[in-house]
Amino acid sequence: MAYNLLKGKKGIIFGALDEKSIAWKAALKCYEEGAQLVLTNAPVALRMGTINKLSEICGNAPVIGADVTNVDDLKNLIEKSMEHFGGGIDFILHSVGMGLNVRKGKPYTELNYDWNQKTFDISSVSLHKVLKTCWELDALNEHASVVALTYIAAQRVFPSYNEMADAKALLESITRMFGYYYGERKKVRVNTISQSPTPTTAGSGVQGFDSFLSYAEKMSPLGNAPAEACADYIAVMFSDLTRYVTMQNLFHDGGFSFTGVTDKVLNAMKPDA
Amino acid sequence: MAYNLLKGKKGIIFGALDEKSIAWKAALKCYEEGAQLVLTNAPVALRMGTINKLSEICGNAPVIGADVTNVDDLKNLIEKSMEHFGGGIDFILHSVGMGLNVRKGKPYTELNYDWNQKTFDISSVSLHKVLKTCWELDALNEHASVVALTYIAAQRVFPSYNEMADAKALLESITRMFGYYYGERKKVRVNTISQSPTPTTAGSGVQGFDSFLSYAEKMSPLGNAPAEACADYIAVMFSDLTRYVTMQNLFHDGGFSFTGVTDKVLNAMKPDA
Amino acid sequence: MAYNLLKGKKGIIFGALDEKSIAWKAALKCYEEGAQLVLTNAPVALRMGTINKLSEICGNAPVIGADVTNVDDLKNLIEKSMEHFGGGIDFILHSVGMGLNVRKGKPYTELNYDWNQKTFDISSVSLHKVLKTCWELDALNEHASVVALTYIAAQRVFPSYNEMADAKALLESITRMFGYYYGERKKVRVNTISQSPTPTTAGSGVQGFDSFLSYAEKMSPLGNAPAEACADYIAVMFSDLTRYVTMQNLFHDGGFSFTGVTDKVLNAMKPDA
Amino acid sequence: MAYNLLKGKKGIIFGALDEKSIAWKAALKCYEEGAQLVLTNAPVALRMGTINKLSEICGNAPVIGADVTNVDDLKNLIEKSMEHFGGGIDFILHSVGMGLNVRKGKPYTELNYDWNQKTFDISSVSLHKVLKTCWELDALNEHASVVALTYIAAQRVFPSYNEMADAKALLESITRMFGYYYGERKKVRVNTISQSPTPTTAGSGVQGFDSFLSYAEKMSPLGNAPAEACADYIAVMFSDLTRYVTMQNLFHDGGFSFTGVTDKVLNAMKPDA
Repeated sequence: MAYNLLKGKKGIIFGALDEKSIAWKAALKCYEEGAQLVLTNAPVALRMGTINKLSEICGNAPVIGADVTNVDDLKNLIEKSMEHFGGGIDFILHSVGMGLNVRKGKPYTELNYDWNQKTFDISSVSLHKVLKTCWELDALNEHASVVALTYIAAQRVFPSYNEMADAKALLESITRMFGYYYGERKKVRVNTISQSPTPTTAGSGVQGFDSFLSYAEKMSPLGNAPAEACADYIAVMFSDLTRYVTMQNLFHDGGFSFTGVTDKVLNAMKPDA
Repeated sequence: MAYNLLKGKKGIIFGALDEKSIAWKAALKCYEEGAQLVLTNAPVALRMGTINKLSEICGNAPVIGADVTNVDDLKNLIEKSMEHFGGGIDFILHSVGMGLNVRKGKPYTELNYDWNQKTFDISSVSLHKVLKTCWELDALNEHASVVALTYIAAQRVFPSYNEMADAKALLESITRMFGYYYGERKKVRVNTISQSPTPTTAGSGVQGFDSFLSYAEKMSPLGNAPAEACADYIAVMFSDLTRYVTMQNLFHDGGFSFTGVTDKVLNAMKPDA
Repeated sequence: MAYNLLKGKKGIIFGALDEKSIAWKAALKCYEEGAQLVLTNAPVALRMGTINKLSEICGNAPVIGADVTNVDDLKNLIEKSMEHFGGGIDFILHSVGMGLNVRKGKPYTELNYDWNQKTFDISSVSLHKVLKTCWELDALNEHASVVALTYIAAQRVFPSYNEMADAKALLESITRMFGYYYGERKKVRVNTISQSPTPTTAGSGVQGFDSFLSYAEKMSPLGNAPAEACADYIAVMFSDLTRYVTMQNLFHDGGFSFTGVTDKVLNAMKPDA
Repeated sequence: MAYNLLKGKKGIIFGALDEKSIAWKAALKCYEEGAQLVLTNAPVALRMGTINKLSEICGNAPVIGADVTNVDDLKNLIEKSMEHFGGGIDFILHSVGMGLNVRKGKPYTELNYDWNQKTFDISSVSLHKVLKTCWELDALNEHASVVALTYIAAQRVFPSYNEMADAKALLESITRMFGYYYGERKKVRVNTISQSPTPTTAGSGVQGFDSFLSYAEKMSPLGNAPAEACADYIAVMFSDLTRYVTMQNLFHDGGFSFTGVTDKVLNAMKPDA
């Protein structure tokens, strides 16, 4: 069901890898709600080609490659988007993250620091780079809305999340800091959405993901929030109905974040445990 | 602008005193978005008669008096509402609060405990009573959404807020606790919205309110959130687009909550201060 | 091992029921660290007589009965204590709580509101009453330290904790609010310590306590904090080494509060769960 | 006044630049409380020579230079310290931070990313490097305690704090994450202390620092916490009396963190503001 929530709005979606991606579903939802889109991802991800399918569904939205750690790429992306839109940008979804140590199986106590620095650059500082690029080009319209996806590992330890916990804490801090400046300047709001663990292609790679998913399901009074519901929430945050919400970390997790324990979890413990 | 966000939904609005009330504006917005409403307030407040004007604008929504501390009144309200709607309830706005010690000028260090108990009963336990009444009557539909209004004094000290700080902390805890149970049972979500200081008839009574309002304005990157914007946010929380958000305290405050200081505040300090 | 941390200090300990009580162990520790004590508890608890044993160990500390909900009793307690000490008070431990609905087996969704009100009066408002009594009698010395015991159910839902969750949220708010006023007036600090679940006589009564204890143990990187360690931490908070810590909720829980999940918990889940 | 709180304990103090440094005062306090110390700082800071004075006062504590971003330097430091102590280490103070963009006058919206990366490396990742080095050498004794100094800009925006806000958020996340692992392995606890703004040589460099200090003083019920009191608190966290406190961020700030506004601040606003 669509409401025309984003009619006339123009935005950029980072990170739609494939149909399972939250960013993919967010793009669909935003398009459905009346927005015009530009899609972007890392050049290596674009080479898979699946994003073209998304582009077609979304009214042939331009697909513009950009390495989020490269400010020239970002400048090109923002400029091309403004040309395409014929003006400023109303929203941006930052759904970008990669843990190099995670991917290479390095435990948290043995981090490779070069990889760790790249992890932060891709997953966290990239948001600063996107916003700084917009700032310099005065690319965001008044009341524009920026959302970055994060995870509760930024607040509490989930061991398997490894260095990505630190990356998300950094991302959330950048959200607050840049949110302050862009709010003062142009009433732009910047928020993170902290989503339930989601079986995306990226998420599923983490070791022990399935058993963790099952634990989180039992620990959430409403169950884990599905990716589609996250797309709905993102659309809401891009709409004019949330204009005074900024610098927040918004949990979209079926209540997991404020649940200490549930009967379901206690009952699932082995009797001799 | 309306989106039909609440088309077909049925809800109860507590606490619309007059045109300045957040609940008043929320009722208007929900009606605009397609909802059917029942309006309620304390019998003494209804006697003012202004709420009938709101009822008329909202398609002659029934006005049913209820003392929120009285479970019989609440039972009557919920039963009558269900009769009127011809079925279950989709949303409830709890915008109720009164600080008896505040009203009578008692400072926090000199509280009268009888009044304090009534303050908690009206402002906090009333939410439990509303939810327990719904629970017993199985009055809430699956995925129903309950929102209570709160203030950041629940987290940090704002001296003039007095005992209402404690009342709001209690309200937020009840929100989490009942949110857990109603989430598990019927996927109902319960949240608080923590709104900027708002020049309502209730709010304006607090001593030094104007200078505080001016301070909060300077401390919020987007400025204080107006009541209309709060109404928008409430409508969003009642919609199907936020189905997995529960047990949260959602700041709707122009960024105040995550701002430690601003240049505007520092510049407004007396030079010799 | 003792350090003379509290040499010359004088304080009141509420809530030492028996040898398992945290307050009991705190009294021992404070005495060991050089403090003079007054012990207090509800008259009904004193009738058990065990507290006299504690009094003997603690240099024949006076035992003065007081119903914490009764301001006359509290006035008598504070006055008698000041007489005994020959002057002001340096610290107070508030280790008081009782959930009437919990005790009588009422689930959270079925609370009896009279009992609920008494629960708040005993467990939360009592702290306000103690502090207000001190405030009126100017009983606290400069830099005095007040600690109340709380539990993380004030922040997140632990279903079996029932109405005590709300009581603790209220207690923590009172801590902040009165902490502000007493800090401004006499540099008194007021804090809560949020302790691991502890197998005291009071704690053990809660249904399913043992399985919860085992869960918390697995969820805490250091394991559950024992009552003796809590007594140590309380002594530290009463000492001159923590003079600028106020209005805080201090987790003493082996890391439970900032742990989202542990391998131990995941491994203890039934394979088919 | 000394209590022998750290008798027999051995620890490393990072970051004692001069007599105004919190680390300097912490070293004095820890020595006074019976600890044996190793002092360390960046080679460039050591060249100033003032640390030798501290070494003399602290029983000729060895001074070992180490660039905290260099794992070989850290390995050398830890190994030499263990040789000197004849065994494992009981505590570490991480009081290290430098904002390159801050120092070079770059506003937050114009960060130089190379400098930013070095800021994170020096101020945040350095804690991971120290702990990883200890982990590999099994250098920390059971129940050892690690404290890093942080600032509330990690939670809320203080514009002049610039990129250091992000650095501190990252530092606090590393504290939690490594705290989990080292807690599980050897009951080591890792915490941050979030101190009031302090007029150290480092702190004073920040633009507008004096007016901010005055604001924070007015916003703290107990006033800003002095560096000496912070040293006391650090000693407490290194002692055996706080063995179950881990993965926490401990505010040592006179109540600033939980104060939303004070009468002093409101009264210091210009009347026409």
